Order: sequence, then structure tokens, then C-alpha cells
Amino acid sequence: MTSDPGSVRPGGRTARVRAAVLRAAGDLLAERGFGALDLTEVAALAEVGKTTVYRRWGTPAGLVTDLLLAMAEESVPRADTGTLRGDLLADARLVLDTLTDARQGRLFRAVIAAGTADPATEVALRRFYDVRLAEWAPCVTDGIARGEAPVGTDPRAVLSAVAAPLYYRLLISGDPLDGTTAVRAAEAAMDAIAAGRFIAT
Amino acid sequence: MTSDPGSVRPGGRTARVRAAVLRAAGDLLAERGFGALDLTEVAALAEVGKTTVYRRWGTPAGLVTDLLLAMAEESVPRADTGTLRGDLLADARLVLDTLTDARQGRLFRAVIAAGTADPATEVALRRFYDVRLAEWAPCVTDGIARGEAPVGTDPRAVLSAVAAPLYYRLLISGDPLDGTTAVRAAEAAMDAIAAGRFIAT
Repeated sequence: MTSDPGSVRPGGRTARVRAAVLRAAGDLLAERGFGALDLTEVAALAEVGKTTVYRRWGTPAGLVTDLLLAMAEESVPRADTGTLRGDLLADARLVLDTLTDARQGRLFRAVIAAGTADPATEVALRRFYDVRLAEWAPCVTDGIARGEAPVGTDPRAVLSAVAAPLYYRLLISGDPLDGTTAVRAAEAAMDAIAAGRFIAT
Repeated sequence: MTSDPGSVRPGGRTARVRAAVLRAAGDLLAERGFGALDLTEVAALAEVGKTTVYRRWGTPAGLVTDLLLAMAEESVPRADTGTLRGDLLADARLVLDTLTDARQGRLFRAVIAAGTADPATEVALRRFYDVRLAEWAPCVTDGIARGEAPVGTDPRAVLSAVAAPLYYRLLISGDPLDGTTAVRAAEAAMDAIAAGRFIAT
């Protein structure tokens, strides 16, 4: 866990090993969860030497931390539809598509669970969401500039409000994750924005 | 996991053993999470015979399932403040107080994580939230009857919307759980109710 992925030449051997190991780790996490993540099995699945995996990632938590870093690097760029409503609908749709994707949905459940069990993983999880929320924040600030949201509206609070009902269904209630829920999450956020609920105090 | 707690005479020996074991299980879950839950340790902490704990609860998942059942039995009754806004503010405050309580907050993180890792625990977790959401649903139906929400407003969707931003902070963003967030969650739900967003389609 000492290498800086930014310094790795893309396509180089180190980058290829990392990609294979993180892919295997993600597959195992999605399939069986954090509690069953085993470095020897990850090495075998990735067709990488066991020693390499233990030396570079050390522990299951180290592996999940690096996986979250890679996920942050590949974070989907913000929408830019020209309206705040359009951008928030795109955001809700992206969260929906991610959480309902068979592999991704299970992977997110596993890394969120891992974050509750291990402090270093929790830091990595927060950092992943920080990157995601920062990437999409300009949707809100652009909306403020266009007069579609009151001055002082907090982008992070708005984006959290859009995503929260979808994560609640995934992790808590088990209610279906569908297009209606995604649209409702974005539209409800627009209602609350208009009422000035997200103006930072 | 075959006994029906409803059939246990309150205050009887069986009920006392169950209470002690579930208290110990909750303490260990809050302290160290689901991955570290050990039946022998639970028995020692509860001062109950190891054989009793293994025979009655079988596995850590069996223990968490029964704990969630007990939590559902002790679920806080709905508020009845006389207004929908008042009831939703009370609901948001209850969720906030629960998730920010040192023991309860960690316990909820642990059981939610356990629900992602074990199907039987997931069923028990859903059942706990079903009980909670059903208990508070009359706040919304009473509000509809008083003309404070459009006819057809879905109680479960409203209550999920109130709780979701708080769970999002607990599990995902790590942003502070404070009174402002709770009030905002309730007020934003009121905005969306007024706009007809929660009318079941």
C-alpha cells in the first residue's frame, strides 16, 4: 500500500498487476462480502504471485482501501445537461444504475459494510465519496449561477439528499430500486432547494 | 432460534437468559462489529452457559436475528403531536438520537453490515425496519385525514425520506449527524409531500 497509482505508467506491468488484483478482489467482495476476502484466493484468481499480493496490499483492509482509491480514480464525470434539474436527474440515474448493477450493487454493499468494521477502510470509503461529491458539486454551483437555486445552497447536502433514498433502499428497507425512486429523489431535492432547505447555516 | 419470544413469560428464567445474552451480543457488536461476534464470548459476558447459547442461537447470525427481533419488540411508539410536521420532526429526532447514541449508533452500523453479509440477518433487518415503518405510518395517514398531505401519499416512502439523509451520513459520507440535518430531513420531506412527490403511482 505504499505505491502511488498516479506514478504508475499506465499499461506497465505494475499497473497490469494492480488492475488484475483489484478486479479479483472486487469479484470476491461482490460474491461473498468482506468477511470472506482472502488474499491467497485473490492472488490465485488474479493469476498473480501470492507474495506480491501480501507484500503490496498486506491485509484484506489494505486491498479494499486500494480498490476504493481505484474506484475514485474511475469516478464518473459530472453531468452537464444545462439545467440543475437535468443534472440531478442524471445523478440519481447514475446512483440507481450503479446500485442495481448486479456486480456493482453487491460490491458497494460489501465496501460500505467493510467501512463499518475497519477504520482505515472507513477513511478510504469517505475519501471515495468525497471525490464523487466534489466531482458533482459544480452541477449545483452552476445551478446557483443560473438562478435555479438560492445563493448559499450547499452542493454536498443537495447531492447527499439525491443519493440517500437510494442507499436507504439498498442497505436498510430493501424496497425496490427503480426509476420512480430515482426521479422522486431528484425532484424532492429540487422542491427542498426551492424552499431554501439546503442553504448552509 | 426455535423459541417464540412472545410465548416466554416475561421475567421468567428463559426471558432473563435471553435478555442477558442479547444485551451481551449487542455490547460486543457495538464494540467490535459482526465479524468479531463470538458465541463463547457472549455466553461468558452474559454469565450464561455456553451450551445454552449454542443450543438456542446456534450461530452469530442466529444471535443477530434474535437481537433484531427484540429491537423490533421494543420499537419506540409513533409520535402523535397533532400535526404531520410535528410528527416528522419527532421521527427525524428519534432517528438522530438513536444513530448518535454511542452504543446504538455502533450497534446499528454493525447489524446493517451484518445484513449485507448474511441472508437470514438481512431478512431480520428488513423485518425490524418493517415494524418501525408500520408503527410510524399512521403519522402520515392521520396527516392525510387532516388535509396536511395529498390523498394517496405513501407513508413508507415519506418515512424513508425522513430517515435516509441521516443513515447516509452514518454509513456513507461521514458528515456530522446534528439537529440541523434532522430538521432539514423532516422539512424537505414536507416540501416534497406538498409537491405530491410521494403519491404512490
